[in-house]
Amino acid sequence: MSQVITLTTDFGLKDGYVGCLKGVILNIAPEAAIVDLCHEIQAFDVISASLVVANSYRYFADGTIHVIVVDPGVGSSRRPVLVKVNKHYFVGPDNGIFSYLIANQANVKVYELTNSKWFLENVSATFHGRDIFAPVAAHLASGRQARELGRAIEPKSLVQEQMPSVEVKGKQIIGYVVYIDNFGNLITNIAAQHVKKSSRLTIGKQQIGNLSRTYADVKSGQVTAFVGSHGFVEIAAFKAKAKNILRASIGNKVYLES
Amino acid sequence: MSQVITLTTDFGLKDGYVGCLKGVILNIAPEAAIVDLCHEIQAFDVISASLVVANSYRYFADGTIHVIVVDPGVGSSRRPVLVKVNKHYFVGPDNGIFSYLIANQANVKVYELTNSKWFLENVSATFHGRDIFAPVAAHLASGRQARELGRAIEPKSLVQEQMPSVEVKGKQIIGYVVYIDNFGNLITNIAAQHVKKSSRLTIGKQQIGNLSRTYADVKSGQVTAFVGSHGFVEIAAFKAKAKNILRASIGNKVYLES
Amino acid sequence: MSQVITLTTDFGLKDGYVGCLKGVILNIAPEAAIVDLCHEIQAFDVISASLVVANSYRYFADGTIHVIVVDPGVGSSRRPVLVKVNKHYFVGPDNGIFSYLIANQANVKVYELTNSKWFLENVSATFHGRDIFAPVAAHLASGRQARELGRAIEPKSLVQEQMPSVEVKGKQIIGYVVYIDNFGNLITNIAAQHVKKSSRLTIGKQQIGNLSRTYADVKSGQVTAFVGSHGFVEIAAFKAKAKNILRASIGNKVYLES
Repeated sequence: MSQVITLTTDFGLKDGYVGCLKGVILNIAPEAAIVDLCHEIQAFDVISASLVVANSYRYFADGTIHVIVVDPGVGSSRRPVLVKVNKHYFVGPDNGIFSYLIANQANVKVYELTNSKWFLENVSATFHGRDIFAPVAAHLASGRQARELGRAIEPKSLVQEQMPSVEVKGKQIIGYVVYIDNFGNLITNIAAQHVKKSSRLTIGKQQIGNLSRTYADVKSGQVTAFVGSHGFVEIAAFKAKAKNILRASIGNKVYLES
Repeated sequence: MSQVITLTTDFGLKDGYVGCLKGVILNIAPEAAIVDLCHEIQAFDVISASLVVANSYRYFADGTIHVIVVDPGVGSSRRPVLVKVNKHYFVGPDNGIFSYLIANQANVKVYELTNSKWFLENVSATFHGRDIFAPVAAHLASGRQARELGRAIEPKSLVQEQMPSVEVKGKQIIGYVVYIDNFGNLITNIAAQHVKKSSRLTIGKQQIGNLSRTYADVKSGQVTAFVGSHGFVEIAAFKAKAKNILRASIGNKVYLES
Repeated sequence: MSQVITLTTDFGLKDGYVGCLKGVILNIAPEAAIVDLCHEIQAFDVISASLVVANSYRYFADGTIHVIVVDPGVGSSRRPVLVKVNKHYFVGPDNGIFSYLIANQANVKVYELTNSKWFLENVSATFHGRDIFAPVAAHLASGRQARELGRAIEPKSLVQEQMPSVEVKGKQIIGYVVYIDNFGNLITNIAAQHVKKSSRLTIGKQQIGNLSRTYADVKSGQVTAFVGSHGFVEIAAFKAKAKNILRASIGNKVYLES
C-alpha cells in the first residue's frame, strides 16, 4: 500500500509547477501515490484553499499527507510548518492556510520545519512548494518522523485567518456565503444542525424558501437550498448556476428562519 | 498490475470534488491506479460525457472500470447503475450517460446498484459520485463481482438520450456536428465508411471541399476536413480553430456528397 | 520503483485525449507512474512547451521519460523522434519542441522513430500522441532500448526554433520576456549570472528598479523583479499580476543595467 500525498495549490495547470512538485516527491519517495486535490485555487486565496482541503481530507485514509501551497509570502518571514490534525498531516506555509483545518479541533500538533536537511539542496526564495514543502512531504512519506523535520511549536501560534461566524438571533441564524463552486452553488457557513423542518432561507433580500433535499426537487433553472454534501446549507439551481441567477458572491449574507 | 479506474466528470478542477472521489477509492482499493479521463465536461452535459468516454475507453485494457459522473438528477429517482460493455465496466447514474457506450453493442449487461453495503456509510442526497459511484468502483476493483453490487436489469431499460443519426439520401449523407474539442475541431457523426475518394463536405452553406488526410494538408489558418482519429469526419483548421472561423456549433448540419 | 513517464501537451483537459494517452501507456507498461507535467500549453505553442519542459525535467529522476505532444504538423513529413539529453528521455515530434532542451547541451542523442513495431497497430494521420508517442514511451519504460525504437540521427538535424538571445552592450544586458505564467509573472531570458548587486531593471520604458529577493519584498500590488526559481530574472507583483499592471506580453524587451 503506497503512502498517499495530496497536492492543493493555486498554481493552475498551464506552467509545469505542479509537475516539478511531483518530480521532487517521486525522486525522494518513488512509491508515493500522488493525488491532485485541486490546483485551481484562485491565486493567493489562502482561505478558499483552507476550506477546500478541510472539506476533502476526511475522505482520505489516516496517515495521508496533504501538501497545501498557496503562498504569496514565500521567502518572507512566514514559517514553513507541518500540522498534524488527528491522524492527518498537512504541510505548507504558516499564513492562515490551516485556519479551517484546525478550527474546533482538539488534537492538533504543529512543527516548524527548521531542519533544512530535508529540503532541496538549493532553496530558492520564491518556490518553497518545490524546494521545501514537496521534499519534506516526501521524506515524511518515506518514514521520517515529524520531530525529525523540525521543532514542535504551539498550535496557538499559527496564523489564523478571520473566518466568518454564524450569528444566532432567536429563531434567526445569520450566516454567509463562504464558497462558490464550479457549478455556481453557493456554500454557506450554516451547519446542518441549525436546520429544522420549518426552516426558510433568504439570501440578501431574495427569498429561497423552505429547504429541499436535492437539486432535482425544483424545476430546471430554479433556485433551491438544502444541506449540501459537506454538511452546510447550500444554495443551488437545478441544471443552472445559482451564482448567476442570484448575482451572488462570497460574503453575501444568508438568513435562516425557523 | 494495478486495477485501473478512470474518472470522467463535470466537476472541474477548482473545488476538490475530484480529490474526494480519489480519497474514497484509495481508501477501499489502495492499489488502484486512478486515471483522470476528463473533468472539464460542460456542467450537466450528459451526452458529451457519453461521447468522450465512448471515444476513449477502448484504449484501456479489458477489465478497466470507468466512473462517469455527470449527474444533475442526483438524489432523485434516477438509478445508480453498473454497465458492462464487452469487458469494460462503467459506473454512473442512469440518465442517458451510457447512450454512446451501448449504441450498437451486442454484449451489454446492466446492474442496478441496489446493495448499499458497498456505498459510503452516510449517503448524501447531492454527491453520489463520492458516496456511491466511487466506492462501488473501488469495491469492484477489489474483487467484488457485479452481481454482488446489485441486481441485473434489462439493458433496454436504461435511459437513452436521443443521439443525432445520419441520413442517407442517394449519394448525399446528412450528418451533424456532435462535438467540438479544445482545438476548435468539429467532430461529426459521419463515420469513415461513408467517405469515398470523391467525397466533398459542406457545413451549413460553407463548402469545405474534398477531404484531406491531416491538418497540415492546408495552409495555416485554412479549414479542411478528414476522417479524424476516432473514425468520424472532422472539420479542422491548420494552426487555427475551425469553430471560430466557421462560427460553428454543436448541432450544425453537415453534408457529404460523393 | 515504477518507471516515471511525464506528459506535456496542448490538449487541454476537456476532451479525453490525455486519457487516451494514459490508457495506451498503461496497456503496454502497467507499472508505469504517469505524471501530468502540463496539458494547458496554448494550442500549437511549440516553444512554450519546450520551455516548460526544460524548466521542469531536472526535478525528475534520471531515466524519466518525458512525452511532449504539441504537434500541429501531425501526419505531415515532420519526424517522430526520441531525444536523450544526459540521462533524460524525451519523445515527440521534430518540430522545434526540443529547442530549449538541447540548447547548450553536450550530451544529446537523437533517434528517429522508424520502427512501427512499437506503434499502435492502426496509426491515424492526426493523433500520433496516442498512436506513436505514447506507445513508444511505454515500450521504452518496459525496457526496450533506444536503438530498437529507430535509427540514430544527427542531433544537429533536429528542427531548431529561433530562441530570443540576450545581448550584452557594455554594462547593459538586453533580454526579452519569454514566458508569462499563471500568476502573471514575466519570466525573462536573462540568467542569474548577469545580475549584480547594483543591477536595475527596466521593461520597455517602465523602470522596475533594483532587484529584490522575493514577492513579499514590496507592498501588495507593487511590481518587483528578482532571480526566479528557474534561475532567470523575473518580474512579478506581490499578490497581483505583473502582466496586467505592466500590460506586458511575451517578446517585450527588458534591460538590465549594472
